[in-house]
Amino acid sequence: MKIEVLKNVFAKNDNAAEENRELFDEHGVLCINLLGGAGSGKTSLLEAVLPQVKASLRVAVLEGDLATTRDAQRIAELGVPVVQLLTEGGCHLNATLVAHGLERLSLDEVDVLVVENVGNPICPANFDLGEHHRIAVLSVTEGDDKPSKYPLLFKGAACVVITKCDLLEHTDFDLDQATQDLRRVNPEAQVIRTETKNGGGMADLAQWILRRAEARRAGLRAGG
Amino acid sequence: MKIEVLKNVFAKNDNAAEENRELFDEHGVLCINLLGGAGSGKTSLLEAVLPQVKASLRVAVLEGDLATTRDAQRIAELGVPVVQLLTEGGCHLNATLVAHGLERLSLDEVDVLVVENVGNPICPANFDLGEHHRIAVLSVTEGDDKPSKYPLLFKGAACVVITKCDLLEHTDFDLDQATQDLRRVNPEAQVIRTETKNGGGMADLAQWILRRAEARRAGLRAGG
Repeated sequence: MKIEVLKNVFAKNDNAAEENRELFDEHGVLCINLLGGAGSGKTSLLEAVLPQVKASLRVAVLEGDLATTRDAQRIAELGVPVVQLLTEGGCHLNATLVAHGLERLSLDEVDVLVVENVGNPICPANFDLGEHHRIAVLSVTEGDDKPSKYPLLFKGAACVVITKCDLLEHTDFDLDQATQDLRRVNPEAQVIRTETKNGGGMADLAQWILRRAEARRAGLRAGG
Repeated sequence: MKIEVLKNVFAKNDNAAEENRELFDEHGVLCINLLGGAGSGKTSLLEAVLPQVKASLRVAVLEGDLATTRDAQRIAELGVPVVQLLTEGGCHLNATLVAHGLERLSLDEVDVLVVENVGNPICPANFDLGEHHRIAVLSVTEGDDKPSKYPLLFKGAACVVITKCDLLEHTDFDLDQATQDLRRVNPEAQVIRTETKNGGGMADLAQWILRRAEARRAGLRAGG
């Protein structure tokens, strides 16, 4: 019985995700689902990268959290339209909650929508939100064993960002080991290393997003 | 229907947790549930603290993970009996899985059992495993906003360990802010700060565990 209900939950989510994706395509929006553990540096990445993306494309953000509107406030300070999605204790975003958030945005005025998921390396990876791409975040302070311990987080990601690389020398994080484990789980993902303090790698991530948006628009023009 | 089933899941778990607790009390075992986000430093804490606890009490560990037996291997190297509990993708330990783990341990030869939960700041806090106390772990590299963003993790903890304090100077973590937010969620918890590299604070945590084990045994002798 439990399995039956879980199937229904996933089926319901998948339907809602498909509707979100159709909405994105109608409005020419590229949607990115940003996932990672608590404190892996997702919001800090957005603070560094969105101003660069925003220079050529119109950006909006849906901020997922269990409680508080702190992250949405940080994004709003960038002058980026943002809606806070509160799960009220729930451990992941689902496509229906995202759909409610979309009602609050003018999608015709958005080129790139980033959905920052709840800080959790496990459950969010199970729920399609209708995104076109996933970016998975891993900080060096979390440890190099995480790609093997949380494979699903990294498996579906088109891009993996290894954050806080400026702290590498203060940790036992083995970048080669982590990259090797990551490649075993996901041989295709683009891997980008970023540094919080001096902004290293942030331009690479901004470029990655811009190229994806460009490819998406070309695909839509070609009827793809 | 969904809510009904979830109620059943929790009720089933609570029954199993109560059975675990009775088993612990029969055998004079103090059980601690160790919770925190991925990479918050739970296993490293055990590596530093268990050798100190082990000098006066018999210790065993149940290691919860989604995949791999890496953490159990790290504990086994300390000469501590350990059983790896694999959730196979599941985001939390439940009391039934813990009960299976207990079958593999000689509880008469254990004074303190630490259950290291899956690295996840959300779901594990919802599941009673039959433990007597919870220790919640927060690393300074995760950010000082976490007590407010993940209140349930800290709410039920008898002890909160703030780890990686040797990295404080390299982060924006505001110790006063975090402690204040923590106190709002949980005014009672003992707060211990630890440093990974030089072992600062580890003796305090070992003492905390030893005192709890002593209190538990005194309570059991008095028929409590």
